Amino acid sequence: MSEKKYLILAEGFSDDVHYGKTLRGVMRYRRESVVAILDTQRAGESDDGVPIVATVDEGMQHGPSAALVGVVTQGGRFPGDWQELLKSCVTHGLDLENGLHVRLHDIPGLPELAREHGVELRDLREPPRDLSTATGANLEVDGTIVLTVGSDCAIGKMTATCELDLEARKRGLRSVFVPTGQTGIAIAGWGIAVDAVVSDFLAGAAERLVVEGAKRGDLLWVEGQGAILHPVYSGVTVGLIHGSAPHLYVLCHEVGRTITEGDPTESPLPSLPELIQLHERMSLKRRPAKVVAISLNTSTVSEDEARAAVAAAEDETGLPADDPVRFGAGKLLEAVLNAQS
Amino acid sequence: MSEKKYLILAEGFSDDVHYGKTLRGVMRYRRESVVAILDTQRAGESDDGVPIVATVDEGMQHGPSAALVGVVTQGGRFPGDWQELLKSCVTHGLDLENGLHVRLHDIPGLPELAREHGVELRDLREPPRDLSTATGANLEVDGTIVLTVGSDCAIGKMTATCELDLEARKRGLRSVFVPTGQTGIAIAGWGIAVDAVVSDFLAGAAERLVVEGAKRGDLLWVEGQGAILHPVYSGVTVGLIHGSAPHLYVLCHEVGRTITEGDPTESPLPSLPELIQLHERMSLKRRPAKVVAISLNTSTVSEDEARAAVAAAEDETGLPADDPVRFGAGKLLEAVLNAQS
Repeated sequence: MSEKKYLILAEGFSDDVHYGKTLRGVMRYRRESVVAILDTQRAGESDDGVPIVATVDEGMQHGPSAALVGVVTQGGRFPGDWQELLKSCVTHGLDLENGLHVRLHDIPGLPELAREHGVELRDLREPPRDLSTATGANLEVDGTIVLTVGSDCAIGKMTATCELDLEARKRGLRSVFVPTGQTGIAIAGWGIAVDAVVSDFLAGAAERLVVEGAKRGDLLWVEGQGAILHPVYSGVTVGLIHGSAPHLYVLCHEVGRTITEGDPTESPLPSLPELIQLHERMSLKRRPAKVVAISLNTSTVSEDEARAAVAAAEDETGLPADDPVRFGAGKLLEAVLNAQS
Repeated sequence: MSEKKYLILAEGFSDDVHYGKTLRGVMRYRRESVVAILDTQRAGESDDGVPIVATVDEGMQHGPSAALVGVVTQGGRFPGDWQELLKSCVTHGLDLENGLHVRLHDIPGLPELAREHGVELRDLREPPRDLSTATGANLEVDGTIVLTVGSDCAIGKMTATCELDLEARKRGLRSVFVPTGQTGIAIAGWGIAVDAVVSDFLAGAAERLVVEGAKRGDLLWVEGQGAILHPVYSGVTVGLIHGSAPHLYVLCHEVGRTITEGDPTESPLPSLPELIQLHERMSLKRRPAKVVAISLNTSTVSEDEARAAVAAAEDETGLPADDPVRFGAGKLLEAVLNAQS
């Protein structure tokens, strides 16, 4: 898709699954776009065949066209040495991409320097300025739209979406990951962080994403957000459901989770059958959508327990279930492809 | 509630139900706060006992503390003569309140003039700057929270909410109208336009409204927005449902409407029984809420047809139904009070 070649800035965290999650995501789902990783602490090593370098100068030898901020900053700002690093990228002629809340445009002197060197600063989390309300163009999209939804926030919807897209691409399908949140956007290099959009334009933003996605392929995997009964984030969830107008849902759940996360009232989670019915009934009248598979996150249990949980979810729902990270995304993908035809 | 005394600016439209809808709303639901109306075209007349004046000078004789923009501007900006009028209010020492999209703060010279004269400019539609995500404080509110929901946008949810509040106040209850949209805010002089809030803070804004409302009374009528299956605005609807955490719903519908408004895809409306079930199932796990009455807007049909429609809605749903504008809000209010006890 993107022709860009990235130097990924991952100073100090290139092997950290949390702080380095953007890097790890790009390395797993968009490996072909990465030419070098910058991390002085691992300089000289390589990571899945990608050289790790200590300086931007060294990184330039591998031919990057852009630098991507690949770590989560601590404290929500770029510290001084990061600011120097970003400026060094700009003076080397690299575009900069950043998916964090903290903005490149707020670093003193950086926008001026970028203009001077003719490079682009992209704060991926900033919503487009020209958003508007939904128009119905979502129903005209030529392709199949699959939305991941979940029993809760932070249960692996983005990962499930990326795994399904990756597996579909491996099989030669014209598959597209459609990112709706900060990390997904940083991984894919496009998208809209729908939770940052003014409420009136929520469905309009989701609609734009599927219209845009359809220019890139015809099997669209839309990253879900929040949960339909989450006391804090449900508005985003439902705006995304109606704006992205999915044909099919994949319902995501984490084995063992019974209480909402990021919710001070600690609500009990609905059962999988209740969630299936609720999502189907909440789908658009002009686009009734079915849940066709259950994606389980079994990362907290043993492999035996994981297999038992998959079987239990299939019994409870009558739908194919699997953990796409642990056991591969093939089974879930086939459930979607079968429902599509 | 408010101690403010208003001069309402309604130049040209003081008897227009559309362009003068803020004025008409304030006159009906907050009559006690109005001391004069400015409209040169009707100067010398009176409106429900309120004198109509031609100039701010004349208006000042009736002792206002603030001026309220009581009309909808055409073209989304204040034309030159309006700008002069607003400046004249400021130089007379009046605070200004405005519920329109167009901002007082954007009128050249007005903010400086306001500072000079020590008066306040309040753009009621601007969301507070310190909003955050919902905290669970909505579940701690001491009082009964009633949310109006609807089969569609623009079917009279605000009017039904105001009529219920007015009837409750007439009966001596500590009743509060909780405004969530531009016109309601202009009428009540407080509130948050929830559709203007960043999506992440939607439930947080609704929560703040009920927490604030509970300082003003213990029977809170929250103005609903959009509709739960509206393809464009459902995100706002659901965020408002979960953030305001109602104990009870009043379901609003317009007789004869079968297709969504403000939706280019013209979705069919769900039936009343389907809407009742969907709203009850979409309520918070920690605050299950019931629909207790049906508020019908019968303004497009004859009185006989209206009575027949009320009876039909009662048959279809098994709940009390009525048109609070045409037949009074007593029956709906009693349904709510019965459900509350």
